[in-house]
Amino acid sequence: MNIAIVGLGLIGGSLAKDLRANGFASKLTGVDSSSIHRRVALELGLVDECLPLEDAVFEADLVVLAIPVRALCQGMVEVLNQIDEDAVVVDMGSTKAEIAEAIQGHPLRKRAVLAHPMAGTEYSGPQAAVSNLFQGKAAIICDRDDSDPDAVRLAERMFQSLFMRVVYMESKEHDVHAAYVSHISHISSFALALTVLEKEASSANIFNLASGGFRSTVRLAKSNPTMWRDVFEQNSQNLLDVLDNYLEHVQDFRNDIAQGDFQQAFRRMEQANAIGPILDQVFESTVK
Amino acid sequence: MNIAIVGLGLIGGSLAKDLRANGFASKLTGVDSSSIHRRVALELGLVDECLPLEDAVFEADLVVLAIPVRALCQGMVEVLNQIDEDAVVVDMGSTKAEIAEAIQGHPLRKRAVLAHPMAGTEYSGPQAAVSNLFQGKAAIICDRDDSDPDAVRLAERMFQSLFMRVVYMESKEHDVHAAYVSHISHISSFALALTVLEKEASSANIFNLASGGFRSTVRLAKSNPTMWRDVFEQNSQNLLDVLDNYLEHVQDFRNDIAQGDFQQAFRRMEQANAIGPILDQVFESTVK
Repeated sequence: MNIAIVGLGLIGGSLAKDLRANGFASKLTGVDSSSIHRRVALELGLVDECLPLEDAVFEADLVVLAIPVRALCQGMVEVLNQIDEDAVVVDMGSTKAEIAEAIQGHPLRKRAVLAHPMAGTEYSGPQAAVSNLFQGKAAIICDRDDSDPDAVRLAERMFQSLFMRVVYMESKEHDVHAAYVSHISHISSFALALTVLEKEASSANIFNLASGGFRSTVRLAKSNPTMWRDVFEQNSQNLLDVLDNYLEHVQDFRNDIAQGDFQQAFRRMEQANAIGPILDQVFESTVK
Repeated sequence: MNIAIVGLGLIGGSLAKDLRANGFASKLTGVDSSSIHRRVALELGLVDECLPLEDAVFEADLVVLAIPVRALCQGMVEVLNQIDEDAVVVDMGSTKAEIAEAIQGHPLRKRAVLAHPMAGTEYSGPQAAVSNLFQGKAAIICDRDDSDPDAVRLAERMFQSLFMRVVYMESKEHDVHAAYVSHISHISSFALALTVLEKEASSANIFNLASGGFRSTVRLAKSNPTMWRDVFEQNSQNLLDVLDNYLEHVQDFRNDIAQGDFQQAFRRMEQANAIGPILDQVFESTVK
């Protein structure tokens, strides 16, 4: 199958690696506005050639859009304007309601499948592409009934070739849950990094005191600001809700400590421990 | 060397494993108020025998205290009341100013070395003990000049036998930095867990949407509430300071999003990215 990958970043690049290795793609064409990304992707052999969007789409049986969500709405419309009626477009965006709205009523809407693979790392760019990034993770397909059955089947086959679990959701519902289970973690991590950077003018104390727990909670602060700015923009209402809930829980701990009510803090932590068995269940079969 | 380990949890148990494996200990005696911990530690071969505190201390050249910090102040005084003048006591507590104060003026103060190994996992109890937990991590020794030089040397030798880097600090200074580089990460994680547990009544959505980033930021919420209650209690003033700073940074992101100022959020994330090279430096030589 001839596949065009638009956006040769971490997700697009990792996808290219796996789809070539597992034989799902017979030809891989890359599209990226950055000449550096294009060069690196070619040097790493992620794609066979790089072409302008129009030329790549013209040849492709399947177009995968793996660009930041702000550019995605326009990019998806452009692709739908150009593809054959039997080609399929799948996007990989982290938010889904805006893109669903952007293509509502498009004559080729049914050739588009809105998806979100729940995989990533804190690194970005084609040089960050890794094999097996998707293995064991969930691939969310949103608003399945708005796509042609054969288009959904092709997206499913692609995700299954990556050993992903396919899950179906409405796009609005997806965005609410993603705010709680993914987006807030990034804000928490960015804010932790800013807190420690503000305090520790020299990195010596971080060097001496940081343990695995610190790394674990702060590493997402390395994430790509462009990607996350776009997610904040497209999912702002859900993020405000989750941020208010989160701020309340942090404030509760602050109040317990200020009032010397350490038993109350203890009870909150006991409640929080309930996440343990859920995490174990989620990740027991997942490759890190 | 005959070593008594008081507190057969994650830290005490992991220490016992390594000190036996590397030959630093010729005999290991365990002390724990929990009969389950004692039995598990014996079954796992972490210690040779378990004895009451008094008997274990009587025989020991080196006593290691690895108990939650609330019990630690009293435990340290009890041990100092009982040891020989040539024995040494090292504690592993996560906060240091209160314990320093608790033993100030004790006739055997100089036989105590206040330490904090910057290592741990989110698990607890002797069954959580793992080999090489300490390798490549920092061991903080506080208020070095308040201990006898030979006592400090013994503590250093023990940490070096575990392939730790020894770092010296004042106890008050330690507690400030630990609040920023370790303690706040745990509160952030407990609060994240409570936020998602409150929203996601069923674990299905967590199961479907959780990726590595979520696990990474939330896994500390599995941590032991007793240990952390005690840390909050003993380091409350520093924690209030760091919590206020942290709440402000989260609130800044909230305000950016509420006001639609996504470029401001972008700039904050760019600033936060500065933690990346520091994390890479800290952890490049560290075993996970």
